[in-house]
Amino acid sequence: MMSGYVWLVGAGPGDPELMTRRAARVLGEADLVLYDALVDPRALDLAPRARRFPVGKRAGRPSIRQETINRLMVRALALVAAGVAFEVVPGVSSAVAAAALAGIPVTHRGLAAGFVVVSGHAETAYGPVLDCLAPHSLTVVVLMGLGSRAAVASRLLARGWSPLTPAAVVLGASTEAAHAWTGTLGAMATADVSAAPSAPGTIVVGAVVSLAAVLGRTSEADVSAVAVGAVR
Amino acid sequence: MMSGYVWLVGAGPGDPELMTRRAARVLGEADLVLYDALVDPRALDLAPRARRFPVGKRAGRPSIRQETINRLMVRALALVAAGVAFEVVPGVSSAVAAAALAGIPVTHRGLAAGFVVVSGHAETAYGPVLDCLAPHSLTVVVLMGLGSRAAVASRLLARGWSPLTPAAVVLGASTEAAHAWTGTLGAMATADVSAAPSAPGTIVVGAVVSLAAVLGRTSEADVSAVAVGAVR
Repeated sequence: MMSGYVWLVGAGPGDPELMTRRAARVLGEADLVLYDALVDPRALDLAPRARRFPVGKRAGRPSIRQETINRLMVRALALVAAGVAFEVVPGVSSAVAAAALAGIPVTHRGLAAGFVVVSGHAETAYGPVLDCLAPHSLTVVVLMGLGSRAAVASRLLARGWSPLTPAAVVLGASTEAAHAWTGTLGAMATADVSAAPSAPGTIVVGAVVSLAAVLGRTSEADVSAVAVGAVR
Repeated sequence: MMSGYVWLVGAGPGDPELMTRRAARVLGEADLVLYDALVDPRALDLAPRARRFPVGKRAGRPSIRQETINRLMVRALALVAAGVAFEVVPGVSSAVAAAALAGIPVTHRGLAAGFVVVSGHAETAYGPVLDCLAPHSLTVVVLMGLGSRAAVASRLLARGWSPLTPAAVVLGASTEAAHAWTGTLGAMATADVSAAPSAPGTIVVGAVVSLAAVLGRTSEADVSAVAVGAVR
């Protein structure tokens, strides 16, 4: 007699090294893994014994049929409904990590005391959130924002944000193809950011973006330990 | 001849299992570790060869003298200034993880399309950010918010948020002492949340908090993989 167990795992911004130790441990024990389209294929190497099903959708990419997704998710959720034990394993969020990896702390004393995060996948979702922000009051992070960068820029400009507000589009954070376009909110809409149209991309708007040039790749965001080693 | 290397590491919300694989790897190689007061002591077991210095401050706790902090940080930053290679290792952010671990997704279709994060350590920092938000427009997360929960509540109420808005105070997320108070914004100011006054605590305000009761410990936030295993 066996009983099932479900883990809901955040896979992080891309690089499997940025998955948590707990995530790696539970993937190693899993018999079945359902993963979305943003999960790096290398992460699946951590689940050698599992049957693996891609269930995510992504703009411009073929994906598994919706009925199949539903069937698999219902099976997983049915375990929960049946009283099967489960656990949430939170991951590194792209909301903070993409900016940090590009040298941008989303908060910084004197520049931004807070940040807002919204998904760029649909204007009906991010529009009302962006409209409620006083201009230059905090850092704006738009996840999956590449495709909506023109709409985001024009929306913020219409609400009174200065076209000279520093802005960045971070692409492929934590992967070997990582790069960032930095410029101004006014230039972002038409900027050539050298990305595949289907790339998710993270938009960052606010004075903190100007720190990318100062800090290089470093960032104060979420740093809670400094480890110093010698490369022998 | 050796050359130095500096890693700036996010240590996550508490449980060392929620540190990234990369963080664990670099701590294992480090000769010197400077860590702040919110880092779980167990995380230091990952750095067995390193000299370790606590450099953080925390309300109500004794901490190392500021001059000592400065001296150690300057030494580390001097490495950077001297052209020593360094790397940012982003961690799991309490901004999202504390809510997720309490069963609260910070965004949810139809309830909140975005979230704002601000630190509760000083009213001069979080006040202007909270004041710029249209009531009920998004989820509000206040880090290190326990001590400021009365001020946060009265500020949001004064700006037009309903006293019936669901609210939570999440304490000790990812530790064995984890628990959450959930109620309304109107009740939060005077609620007995059963916490040590020096605990940081994470405040979450918004309709999504009502999902904690529905979802139990689970959450849709940042879930990018579902792993299913059998407990034999």
